[in-house]
Amino acid sequence: MTKKEAFDTLFAKNEAIGALDMAEALIHWDATTSGVPMKSIEARGAASGWLSGESFRRFVAPDTQECIETLEALDGELTTIERAMVREVGRRYRKAKAIPPEEFQAYSTLLAQAEPIWEKAREKRDYNMILPYYEKIFAFQRRLCDWYGYEKHPYDALLDDYEKGASVEMLDRFFGALREKISPLIKEIGASGQKPKEIKGTFDIAKQKELSPWLCDFVGYDRERGKIGEVEHPFCTTINRHDVRITTKYHEDNLLSALYSTVHESGHALYEQNMDEGLTVYGLDEEASMGMHESQSRLFENIICRSRAFAGQLLPKLRGLFDYFADWNEEELYRAVNIARPSLIRIEADELTYSLHIMVRYELEKALIMGDIKPADLPGLWDNEYEKLLGLRPDNLAEGVLQDVHWSSGAFGYFPTYAIGTAYGAQLVNAIRKSVDVDTAIKNEDLSPITGWLKENVHRHGAVMLPDELLKTATGEPFDAKYYVDYLSEKFTELYL
Amino acid sequence: MTKKEAFDTLFAKNEAIGALDMAEALIHWDATTSGVPMKSIEARGAASGWLSGESFRRFVAPDTQECIETLEALDGELTTIERAMVREVGRRYRKAKAIPPEEFQAYSTLLAQAEPIWEKAREKRDYNMILPYYEKIFAFQRRLCDWYGYEKHPYDALLDDYEKGASVEMLDRFFGALREKISPLIKEIGASGQKPKEIKGTFDIAKQKELSPWLCDFVGYDRERGKIGEVEHPFCTTINRHDVRITTKYHEDNLLSALYSTVHESGHALYEQNMDEGLTVYGLDEEASMGMHESQSRLFENIICRSRAFAGQLLPKLRGLFDYFADWNEEELYRAVNIARPSLIRIEADELTYSLHIMVRYELEKALIMGDIKPADLPGLWDNEYEKLLGLRPDNLAEGVLQDVHWSSGAFGYFPTYAIGTAYGAQLVNAIRKSVDVDTAIKNEDLSPITGWLKENVHRHGAVMLPDELLKTATGEPFDAKYYVDYLSEKFTELYL
Repeated sequence: MTKKEAFDTLFAKNEAIGALDMAEALIHWDATTSGVPMKSIEARGAASGWLSGESFRRFVAPDTQECIETLEALDGELTTIERAMVREVGRRYRKAKAIPPEEFQAYSTLLAQAEPIWEKAREKRDYNMILPYYEKIFAFQRRLCDWYGYEKHPYDALLDDYEKGASVEMLDRFFGALREKISPLIKEIGASGQKPKEIKGTFDIAKQKELSPWLCDFVGYDRERGKIGEVEHPFCTTINRHDVRITTKYHEDNLLSALYSTVHESGHALYEQNMDEGLTVYGLDEEASMGMHESQSRLFENIICRSRAFAGQLLPKLRGLFDYFADWNEEELYRAVNIARPSLIRIEADELTYSLHIMVRYELEKALIMGDIKPADLPGLWDNEYEKLLGLRPDNLAEGVLQDVHWSSGAFGYFPTYAIGTAYGAQLVNAIRKSVDVDTAIKNEDLSPITGWLKENVHRHGAVMLPDELLKTATGEPFDAKYYVDYLSEKFTELYL
Repeated sequence: MTKKEAFDTLFAKNEAIGALDMAEALIHWDATTSGVPMKSIEARGAASGWLSGESFRRFVAPDTQECIETLEALDGELTTIERAMVREVGRRYRKAKAIPPEEFQAYSTLLAQAEPIWEKAREKRDYNMILPYYEKIFAFQRRLCDWYGYEKHPYDALLDDYEKGASVEMLDRFFGALREKISPLIKEIGASGQKPKEIKGTFDIAKQKELSPWLCDFVGYDRERGKIGEVEHPFCTTINRHDVRITTKYHEDNLLSALYSTVHESGHALYEQNMDEGLTVYGLDEEASMGMHESQSRLFENIICRSRAFAGQLLPKLRGLFDYFADWNEEELYRAVNIARPSLIRIEADELTYSLHIMVRYELEKALIMGDIKPADLPGLWDNEYEKLLGLRPDNLAEGVLQDVHWSSGAFGYFPTYAIGTAYGAQLVNAIRKSVDVDTAIKNEDLSPITGWLKENVHRHGAVMLPDELLKTATGEPFDAKYYVDYLSEKFTELYL
């Protein structure tokens, strides 16, 4: 196989996989934004299964290996982008091939059963319903560590699957810093007795919807190259580079929910819209890592749109729509969108406490993989960790160990990307501040100096660099948790103490 | 290749093609019901092209031929449904293989250019813009006749492509009957001086929308197994057997437009929803022919929902929504939905004159294929035919020869299916009347005796039978234009003369 043949083969695969994945994305969009007839679920699932199966089959076909071997042998002759393509294809191919097919089949069947069982278990608050599934899933994940391979810690193999290059060593350091600085801060804040004014009331949904386009435009998400849908659980999906869609959900009694969800998904969409089009043929038009994607959404959601400067821009908009805000001032609004209060449910957590929820899951996953704890002991250990880190103890399993779908869907090693991404965001904004006056940009309602920096240094590169390299190139430093810890400490100390 | 291998191979192809076609249907639904970002059209087109190309490639792969040969040799051993599958696969395969690939490639490119040129030519009313495209397209169509093959008339090859078994012989007889009976009737009606009261005014679109579910339910389209979208040009699309979607378009100044469009598409949807699920694996869960599909939509649109009995049911609904109808009576409404008046635009034509629009196109296509006329002469000939048949002469090309997209998109031999389908509908309802009191069913707002008959005799069979066999089995007679001619003559004579 010549170099040209190898690339042409991979390009053709990318074209096929791109079209199949686009179809899958549209099927998902269609089902979530406008609903699916109940009776059609089986036929739809079968078609969807064929499409995703075909995408996988094309990727793992034997000629992929031949291409990889041919091109890896030519490493010195390759351009940066070609080398990145070979690296990513090789990485994914070896992972896909690492799992014995019959094990993969059985595991897929297990997962298909586990998720609905988890839903019932959560509803009935009955851990014993899901326990046998957890036991099998966790055992599979442990074997997965060996199939994937690792150098230092078996859990590294799983972490790396979601966040390329992540390891126990890196995460222990990261969470160690949070444990040392953020956990005491939360307790101090709790003890301070500060009670900021809260946004409470009902807010007309039609009016809330008027706010969304402004928020998208503010972040820089190009609505002409996408659309906005409404769903139960908001997400961002890419149909192609010029059709990146976001979703949101409006709650009459929670104004901030749709507002920050729209900003969050706009941040994701901006990343997708700004990737170089030339990357598509190489299959590199995707995020550097899940954490890097999350960094973009959280950066806008929290650092930009929970800033004092943004409260100044938001308040007149809110006043124009809701009489409720007539007697509010900017400082009150700033404090209201930054209420920090330990809670039990991760997805409702505030900026300050969020990463501690992740820490609980990280520590438990790590201990499970090492065999230090048993799946049967998770509920009690979970509650103890929450009490220790956040000072709260769940009343029931639905607010405790059964709140997340991830474990029943086999996503093990995934949670940390949420926290790492948030920390990447803080490091990136720290770098941006060296050349950009962030507050002025917000006050001008013109984030182009920020989004331009992100496009140039992060977005356009897609998956060409690994996340650590990308972060280092963009910020001049390797990943360092201190930017995130310092940011949180300074912001919330100033707010509360 | 054994019988089992041949069937398994074809079943696997059907699964793949079904999934790919479902993706295509969803892409089309998504684009038409909620719009596509302009900049995404190219990438979307590329993905869509890959999906439809893959569907085609799988179908024309060499092993399809081996399956066909294996199974055709076993004809005596096959069940009815197996034989139908082999017939349909063989038919489509031979057509697909008949066109030399390089010719097909050049023709596809030509068509991609021609359609936007046609739009501009229509807009500018400039026939010379499209003429060179028409010349090449028509020349290709003539060669297509030879590639497909025919027994009597070259045009038969094209007619059969859209309506299996249709021929010049059949259509000359059919249109001859219309020419003889319907054309004079139209002129008589014109001369009668009758001027029925017309529905004129503006009708709130939100209220029009309240009517649609009732219309769907009335026809028997199961909204729980589909959904209703809004588009520029209404259509019905099948995602799967339990997700059949219709579309409509509301016009404030034209109440009847959405009303009859909803009924029409519901008729199509009913056919799709009622096909036996067991046909899917054989790829036979589709219409017996395009004409048969059109028969189902037109039957409900015209024979059922432009009946006196239906006017009786519709009037109270309209009164409940629009004060406008306060002083209308049933007879006035019946006459208002049946105004017959020669016009120039096919898609706006009434029930009586519609098929004459088709006849103009049929005669011109036939003469073009025979080389009796030249593409350059079409505008004048078109106008002459309209004057002769309908007593009207177009003022410009947009109301004349440039009104339809079909020729620029290569759909040659397609128009007749609209008229044949309408005639099938009349023959089917004539047969239904032998066992069902149609007017009473309408008055009871319970069409189940009619839809039950159609499901049993037409819908459930999908593409197992050819259309002529299906019609003969259902009605006891081969296709006969007299039912359609008699139906129109009686209805409109009673109304107008």
